Amino acid sequence: MIPNAEVEYKEALLEVTLLRRQPEMIKIDVGRQLILQVAIWFSLFHFTLCSLRAQEALPSWREGASKKAIIDFVERVTTAGSADFVPPEQRIAVFDNDGTLWSEQPMYVQMAFALDRVKILAEKKPELLDNKMFKAIVTHDREALKQISERDVLELVMETHANMSTAEFDQIVKDWITTAKHPVYKKPYTECVYVPMLELLEYLRAKQFKTFIVSGGGIDFMRPWVETVYGVPPEQVIGSGVKLRYELRGTEPVIMRLPEIDFIDDKSGKPVGIQRHIGRRPILAFGNSDGDYEMLQYTTSGAKTALGVLIHHTDSKREVAYDRESHFGKLNRGLDDAATNGWVVVDMQQDWEQVFSFQR
Amino acid sequence: MIPNAEVEYKEALLEVTLLRRQPEMIKIDVGRQLILQVAIWFSLFHFTLCSLRAQEALPSWREGASKKAIIDFVERVTTAGSADFVPPEQRIAVFDNDGTLWSEQPMYVQMAFALDRVKILAEKKPELLDNKMFKAIVTHDREALKQISERDVLELVMETHANMSTAEFDQIVKDWITTAKHPVYKKPYTECVYVPMLELLEYLRAKQFKTFIVSGGGIDFMRPWVETVYGVPPEQVIGSGVKLRYELRGTEPVIMRLPEIDFIDDKSGKPVGIQRHIGRRPILAFGNSDGDYEMLQYTTSGAKTALGVLIHHTDSKREVAYDRESHFGKLNRGLDDAATNGWVVVDMQQDWEQVFSFQR
Repeated sequence: MIPNAEVEYKEALLEVTLLRRQPEMIKIDVGRQLILQVAIWFSLFHFTLCSLRAQEALPSWREGASKKAIIDFVERVTTAGSADFVPPEQRIAVFDNDGTLWSEQPMYVQMAFALDRVKILAEKKPELLDNKMFKAIVTHDREALKQISERDVLELVMETHANMSTAEFDQIVKDWITTAKHPVYKKPYTECVYVPMLELLEYLRAKQFKTFIVSGGGIDFMRPWVETVYGVPPEQVIGSGVKLRYELRGTEPVIMRLPEIDFIDDKSGKPVGIQRHIGRRPILAFGNSDGDYEMLQYTTSGAKTALGVLIHHTDSKREVAYDRESHFGKLNRGLDDAATNGWVVVDMQQDWEQVFSFQR
Repeated sequence: MIPNAEVEYKEALLEVTLLRRQPEMIKIDVGRQLILQVAIWFSLFHFTLCSLRAQEALPSWREGASKKAIIDFVERVTTAGSADFVPPEQRIAVFDNDGTLWSEQPMYVQMAFALDRVKILAEKKPELLDNKMFKAIVTHDREALKQISERDVLELVMETHANMSTAEFDQIVKDWITTAKHPVYKKPYTECVYVPMLELLEYLRAKQFKTFIVSGGGIDFMRPWVETVYGVPPEQVIGSGVKLRYELRGTEPVIMRLPEIDFIDDKSGKPVGIQRHIGRRPILAFGNSDGDYEMLQYTTSGAKTALGVLIHHTDSKREVAYDRESHFGKLNRGLDDAATNGWVVVDMQQDWEQVFSFQR
């Protein structure tokens, strides 16, 4: 597509140049001129869209095997006439959130939110402190907190996030996300997002991909802010969630959040979440932990050309270097099997010119 | 928007006319000319989009209160500067399927599918006939079949549609939908769709609405064909569904359909399904039965200007006249409360110039 667009564009420019030199030609037919101009306009437009490639599209990605693999894949599936061409409506790209689009260290952002919530709730309801986990949170009992498993985290989240309407929860998240700051970077969490990944989201959408978030995190914890931060609308967010119930509060209909887990969108839950929400297999998947293994496996085992990408946290200076032994975002199976499975492993330190927007 | 676009368009045309009369002006500056042409092109484009209104957009809708209410609402929420303006990303329109977009008489299409399935399955597994419901189906025992409730239908569907992968089920539905015919119209079911509703879907999308199906029917029964028939992609389909499980069949990942109901997207389940999948409240909802009551209630009770529309099956000649006493698609509460709730009730006989495409 690009070479053609370039040729068309140059031909059109040539024609304009010729016309400039022969003003008498112009007099002949304004109608013909109009058609020509429209053609030039189209070519320009086309050329602009298509020129969103390597250099221009992903400036924070350093030249190298990772960037090349991603760009090559995207070019292959979006070039009409290519054997691997995929029609736009089937260009589904899925992104994990924690550790793939934004920081998940020193802890999941949603856990920070849950801890803050517990503190606020405990002020109003001191009886909450009868619960050991809540007490450990409020008293900053690090030893007790270390015992909390990922499953505990989810249950904590469910417990502290339920018994209110979805609209109320939405407002609580909005209020928190605009005020809370990352403990290390001292910036709002919504700035602790990876610049190269933001570029990737935009690049893919320009290539007519539909971008989805598929996260182990809470679906309704992400929706209030991902549209602004990632350009992903709420209906393209898949995540873990509590059971919901529609009811009338007087005459006002509300959707209540029940203190019961409905779905955990992690590990083998991710392909299930994808099927429930999207109903077709993605052709491009980005993750960073073993929680994303099945999502990448499902994506890259389909009949269509597909690509799986793991973001490997290798940068101890600009971010945090972690993988196999990490508490949040553990990456073992992914690293072991990436080569066999043909997955791209992005080396954050090597492949990214920039990590966070505030770092230069 | 329309008056402005018209003015711009006329001004641009005038300018072209003047230029035609004064060819010496053209000689001066091809660059300026190019800019002008681009402006004309934009105006034309803009004008074309905006001119999709009343007459042109909904030719199968007769002039009257229903059509006027729908068009007025859409104009109000899509006109920049209007007090009721809704930004494009928030223009969510939800449509029930059975009886709203396609025929649900003499029975739900998915039930016809399930009955056909039972017959095929019983040939391979005669032991299925030990089940009374299955036996009644295979032996066409009308009296026994009359005892089947809506809930039975769903369970029948779940039972006969499970224990296979989503890909296998998808293929079975595709094969069936291209061969099965409506028992009354003797046409493929995908032709037994309401022309005025197809026009409405297109009209709304041209007005930058995102159109979703929110049906009590099976989500994976609809997805294989709704994209072609309604222009609604699988990721914008919400429906009832079975539990799913990701697993490996050898090295091939599959998503298995388990014989257990996960979610029933009907009545108060509809607002829940909307929240789970879309995460924001629609501003426009179309239904035809009391199964849609809560969806319309939820839609029209929000802070934003919103509209609820009920399709009332009043046409015994071109379709079937049914409402309060019907087995499928019963409409009682909706008719009782429509006026109070400000919902539009579309009278199919009066308001629709055409029902099915094959009827003229």
